[in-house]
Amino acid sequence: LGEFGRIDRFFRPLAAGFPGARGLADDAAVFAVPDGQELVVTTDAMVAGVHFLPGESPADVAAKLLRVNLSDLAAMGATPYAYTLVTVWPRGLADDWVADFAAALAREQALAGIALAGGDSVSTPGPMTLVITAFGMVPQGAALPRCGARPGDEVFVTGSIGDAALGLLVARQALSVPDDAARHLLARLRRPEPRLTVGRGLRGIASACIDVSDGLAADLGHIAGESGLVAVLEAAAVPLSPAARAVVDQDPGLLALVLSGGDDYELLFTAAPERRPAVAALAAASGVPITGIGHIAAGPAGRVDVRDTRGAAMALARRGWTHD
Amino acid sequence: LGEFGRIDRFFRPLAAGFPGARGLADDAAVFAVPDGQELVVTTDAMVAGVHFLPGESPADVAAKLLRVNLSDLAAMGATPYAYTLVTVWPRGLADDWVADFAAALAREQALAGIALAGGDSVSTPGPMTLVITAFGMVPQGAALPRCGARPGDEVFVTGSIGDAALGLLVARQALSVPDDAARHLLARLRRPEPRLTVGRGLRGIASACIDVSDGLAADLGHIAGESGLVAVLEAAAVPLSPAARAVVDQDPGLLALVLSGGDDYELLFTAAPERRPAVAALAAASGVPITGIGHIAAGPAGRVDVRDTRGAAMALARRGWTHD
Repeated sequence: LGEFGRIDRFFRPLAAGFPGARGLADDAAVFAVPDGQELVVTTDAMVAGVHFLPGESPADVAAKLLRVNLSDLAAMGATPYAYTLVTVWPRGLADDWVADFAAALAREQALAGIALAGGDSVSTPGPMTLVITAFGMVPQGAALPRCGARPGDEVFVTGSIGDAALGLLVARQALSVPDDAARHLLARLRRPEPRLTVGRGLRGIASACIDVSDGLAADLGHIAGESGLVAVLEAAAVPLSPAARAVVDQDPGLLALVLSGGDDYELLFTAAPERRPAVAALAAASGVPITGIGHIAAGPAGRVDVRDTRGAAMALARRGWTHD
Repeated sequence: LGEFGRIDRFFRPLAAGFPGARGLADDAAVFAVPDGQELVVTTDAMVAGVHFLPGESPADVAAKLLRVNLSDLAAMGATPYAYTLVTVWPRGLADDWVADFAAALAREQALAGIALAGGDSVSTPGPMTLVITAFGMVPQGAALPRCGARPGDEVFVTGSIGDAALGLLVARQALSVPDDAARHLLARLRRPEPRLTVGRGLRGIASACIDVSDGLAADLGHIAGESGLVAVLEAAAVPLSPAARAVVDQDPGLLALVLSGGDDYELLFTAAPERRPAVAALAAASGVPITGIGHIAAGPAGRVDVRDTRGAAMALARRGWTHD
């Protein structure tokens, strides 16, 4: 179909109903930002063979690509507004793949209540590379920073941690688990759930927030570093799914992977102890579990002290993905 | 240096002085759009070996990457505000290359009066791939569309056309010209001048506008198509630089390449005949030549009738780049 043909056939429909996209017919999109709101802008790229396994389905690739970007909006406390898409297609890619990818994006954008605003499409002699820039709105001054943690703040995390890292082992056939556990872990790897409702609810509650994409310990290190403080992580408090719990019970050595592996896309945040009731209310209202897993203290900026079940220091071999 | 090291060392300084970038320390950037303004969003990707020649200098790559995006803002009548950058580095790329690339971006963003707002950095087993998303501001409702041309409108173009296509022949050693002409043509290929002042000045004057990136004829076809009309292009009126004129005089067959080749990044726009004095005044005020090269008429949407010096129909073998 060629570049223009694919855009016309597969991607123009994704822009329908969003006037700012101008039908993908102009040099640029135009966003109207309401008075009192700010626009939140985030971008994440995925390269075949680096960020997703070759042979991954177009639907899974589309879902992950949009969801990891939405997760960044969630971490800022933003409400999704629109997104742009850059597709770098390998030569000889079948139009069917593109059609399935676009169909999945249509479902995903509908779930988020947003539309495609624009983008670019080029070809490459190398691997497929996909870039989404996602846009969201926050009330002026309400965006959640990474740098706002204070000594004494508690550290919280949504959902459960480690499923994606274990799912990657399953996908690579490096970990054998029962079928239902495999399904759960792979789904968590491929279809992370952006915690948008919790993110919005954390405005005015969280002192710092980040999504877990580099790994729990590494991302907690980002909060600690940007805040100029130390974070203490209680390994025993970290919430695991039943599937992950069973794996770690069988091989306790995998706990380090759970704490350092990336890609869970849960929200990791800090809040003053007196906000604990507000955090509990948000968990109840959103239906998303939120668990206290540590606290913030004075000390060398960015250090993360991981404590094991007995309170002893625990070394993590690997402080998370570097996205290389 | 690794992903984080390169960002810290080379790219964080590019975000200094722009509070919305939040020091590249958050999950996203935050833009404050003043009341009465709209945000214009455009994105362009470049792949090594596809959009620039292998061996191109990091400074030229940086300049072209930012400038082609700024050119899209110019075509919308927007004032540059900020940009995000996604770098997809090939494995084994020297840190020196990245350092030179970032240093050139620093110069380029200073020229445009903007700063880096955020981005992503990943690695690839394939060719270097770079994506910029550029943001600009326009007064509400003032963005220039492609679809607004009306029958009887005149067609104008800034600067001169064809230098980039001829420059590409020179770069590929497929065209031999005197040294000073080669320098001019290569500079026009590598360092296109985004026509930002003219673009802003065209608010309220142009009925439709686009930048010449797919080729003069193809881009005029985009205006004609989106406006549901026919465009008539007078080949003899198309402004050529002295270097391009000399080449075409020697080999008239190259005129078709000039009219269909891409990458000049001049502004191509339509305006009602009564706006001719305003167009002339804008040319004088901006110091950028603006030339009338045809008109818009009723007829099948998107057709471009190219007329030669005697008014006869002229066929173009190639209607411009498809970016593949």
